[in-house]
Amino acid sequence: MNPGDQKILGSLDEAFDRLGISDGMTISFHHHLRNGDYVLNMVVEALAKRGIKDLIIAASSIFPVHTPLVKHMQSGVVTGIVANYISGPVAEAISRGELKKPAIMQTHGGRARAIESGDLHIDVAFIAAPTADTYGNINGVYGKSACGTLGYAVADAEYADKTVAITDNLVSFPACPIEISQVFVDYVVQVDSVGDPKGIVSGTTKITKDPVALIIAKRAGEVIKASGLVKNGMSFQTGAGGTSLAVAAELKEIMKRDGVVGSFASGGITGYLVEMLEEGLFRTLLDVQCFDLVAIESYRNNARHQFMSASMYGNPHTKGAVVNNLDIMILGATEIDTEYNVNVTTGSDGVIMGGSGGHSDTAAGSKLAIVVTQLLKARLPIIKDKVMTITTPGESVDVLVTERGIAVNPRRVDLIEILSKTKLKLMTIEELKTLAENISGLPKAIKTSEHIVAVVEYRDGSVIDVVRQCL
Amino acid sequence: MNPGDQKILGSLDEAFDRLGISDGMTISFHHHLRNGDYVLNMVVEALAKRGIKDLIIAASSIFPVHTPLVKHMQSGVVTGIVANYISGPVAEAISRGELKKPAIMQTHGGRARAIESGDLHIDVAFIAAPTADTYGNINGVYGKSACGTLGYAVADAEYADKTVAITDNLVSFPACPIEISQVFVDYVVQVDSVGDPKGIVSGTTKITKDPVALIIAKRAGEVIKASGLVKNGMSFQTGAGGTSLAVAAELKEIMKRDGVVGSFASGGITGYLVEMLEEGLFRTLLDVQCFDLVAIESYRNNARHQFMSASMYGNPHTKGAVVNNLDIMILGATEIDTEYNVNVTTGSDGVIMGGSGGHSDTAAGSKLAIVVTQLLKARLPIIKDKVMTITTPGESVDVLVTERGIAVNPRRVDLIEILSKTKLKLMTIEELKTLAENISGLPKAIKTSEHIVAVVEYRDGSVIDVVRQCL
Repeated sequence: MNPGDQKILGSLDEAFDRLGISDGMTISFHHHLRNGDYVLNMVVEALAKRGIKDLIIAASSIFPVHTPLVKHMQSGVVTGIVANYISGPVAEAISRGELKKPAIMQTHGGRARAIESGDLHIDVAFIAAPTADTYGNINGVYGKSACGTLGYAVADAEYADKTVAITDNLVSFPACPIEISQVFVDYVVQVDSVGDPKGIVSGTTKITKDPVALIIAKRAGEVIKASGLVKNGMSFQTGAGGTSLAVAAELKEIMKRDGVVGSFASGGITGYLVEMLEEGLFRTLLDVQCFDLVAIESYRNNARHQFMSASMYGNPHTKGAVVNNLDIMILGATEIDTEYNVNVTTGSDGVIMGGSGGHSDTAAGSKLAIVVTQLLKARLPIIKDKVMTITTPGESVDVLVTERGIAVNPRRVDLIEILSKTKLKLMTIEELKTLAENISGLPKAIKTSEHIVAVVEYRDGSVIDVVRQCL
Repeated sequence: MNPGDQKILGSLDEAFDRLGISDGMTISFHHHLRNGDYVLNMVVEALAKRGIKDLIIAASSIFPVHTPLVKHMQSGVVTGIVANYISGPVAEAISRGELKKPAIMQTHGGRARAIESGDLHIDVAFIAAPTADTYGNINGVYGKSACGTLGYAVADAEYADKTVAITDNLVSFPACPIEISQVFVDYVVQVDSVGDPKGIVSGTTKITKDPVALIIAKRAGEVIKASGLVKNGMSFQTGAGGTSLAVAAELKEIMKRDGVVGSFASGGITGYLVEMLEEGLFRTLLDVQCFDLVAIESYRNNARHQFMSASMYGNPHTKGAVVNNLDIMILGATEIDTEYNVNVTTGSDGVIMGGSGGHSDTAAGSKLAIVVTQLLKARLPIIKDKVMTITTPGESVDVLVTERGIAVNPRRVDLIEILSKTKLKLMTIEELKTLAENISGLPKAIKTSEHIVAVVEYRDGSVIDVVRQCL
């Protein structure tokens, strides 16, 4: 870009002309606007109108809002999808075999690795930008579509052949703050709206009130306490689900009681973790994605609420990801098997309903990876002989906490020794499995065809499992 | 780096063992600690003790404090130097032919380009870190050796095969703020001191009191005003010298009088520009290097005082450097010739005494590049038929302002037309040259041998000139 060159283009179509988008290209999107995102649909729709075919959509995550992708899959506009998490109609359509090529399901850290290494080559990255200036500097903290950090968009911006910022809040140069720099952005296109604020932030990041889930959280807190990891400098991550947040609440009480100051909490950040930061329970937050308005505001105003890219968060091939420094990680599970392999990719019906996200990254990095789950969900046992789909390998999962008992991975002889000195009810995972099956009976096996609809990549790019079409 | 791996090493020697430093390697340093830097000498001395030979030192700048390099050049420990600015005994020794290979002199933006493109391959980057945490996150704003932004160290950290942080302020993980991320840092070594605070910040970034220089500044202010560039959204950069700051003071008065709010001031930042930011004359500062304590404090505390890397500052091969958005740039000159080529590399004696730094980057990018200088220095005319060394090509220099008259580059027909309607005293550069020579007489030509002691690279990597050994 030479002095005098302009980056502002009048429309998406003008951008497509300049970019020379053609059949078979890989175009990428970030998911910080989550189920409120307008940009993916807007771009794919406009490309479909131009008659483009065979696109590969590399989106960090796909949500129900992206349902229009289904028709584009059916018409051949989109023939490949690469994502870390897919839920809703697109996931169901993939499971029905409606995507021509198998979907590739990565992890948050694995996606950054794939992009940076060239495994996942992006022709054009379209960055939904809550704020962008006329020369392509971007932030997510201001504007009507503010979503906070843009951690998942960094590798796309840096490594795509071409990068386009799509914004509904165009500001004068230079934007402040600058989260993604002008040096990575080719063009800026202004649109009416990049997303629906109602879908961007979820209002449901609240602690569960379900009594069973609260018991599980209490037990998880006791495991954490017993592990000896609750001490000054400790670090912690949890998801935004109700049970996970209840574990955070348990931990908070323990930390307060013991006068412990942790080094950091990380990951997707909720208001609950902001509260812990502000109460001095953690020195900083490392934030790849803001989950709610409180987190966005905190990230905007508090220097100790820090940005991290997906690569810094979990890419195993950097000189050290943040997950490597995690002490305690709270994980969910759709299924877990007696080898402690966890499935968060497919549901009990064998249909895709999620994906790793940061699940396997944090499990691999953390000292203590705890899966919290009820023993049965919708009357189906969670523990299986073999999970339908391996998302996270059992070797990186340490403890399973359920309302009926706690199982520790036999690899963690040290933990078993420590926990068996407590009053916590330890069982083998096989015992827990039998307990559940005695209640519900043996679930029917799901039958699949040989047709592979998705390939599950571990964070290092190796194939850890495949998803087959259900019969 | 896997979970559990440690980055802290006990000593520089332990780092050298791990790094496998061997003869002929290229090691790099940044110059944010300027004439107070201890790290370059510390590392080279320790490598000399290990018997290493033929090192290439890629330092963003070299100052008098680095005099020990001279003995290492003489003994063959150091046989190559790549830098953007070299002053003091090392420059003199290079000019005497004491460095085995010709020194390579780059620009600030050109160095980032060279590193990122692979033209300048760095085996090991040693990053002097005023603050570093145990996992290699670095900032320059805290610690006894605080120097502010670390803009010149970014490309080194990102692209070197190995990167070592050397710190005298080791903090718990994670550092806050994080300027250079852990993902780029292999090892962290703690030392007693990385620099002498007295040399890190210069106390001399004050407006000149010299009446001739003040006249020049006044004229430069009038040229800026007449150019029509003083309007809302304008941008400005100047150096830290007394005359340059006097131009800033002139501009400040004009902006206040006209009620103009600029978009940004950039470059190395002084307290004077901080004052303009705080008075609302600029919306933000884009800072590659803090020149004084006021700038460091402002950068630490004011979100509108923003970081930029050397690449974002001036690399011509990015998707747009900050210099491309510069309206007004105030430049110095040791010599300027009738083609408007400027020399800031060699002195009137033909000996190396500086280098481009950001000179040619900003001249190329800005809409109005003004050279301010007295017509004579030490009784020698500044204007030559041909400069001894071309640092910045005349095609990117617009105006020369001296105390005796103003010359506009004939390429800038538009500017000549505008300025000739004012009361400003326009002359041709040849007329100014004659005027000076009538006062001082014709200076003696400097005689050089054919021996090339330094190669001057333009920002795009092309060779713009060479420096020959003086006779």
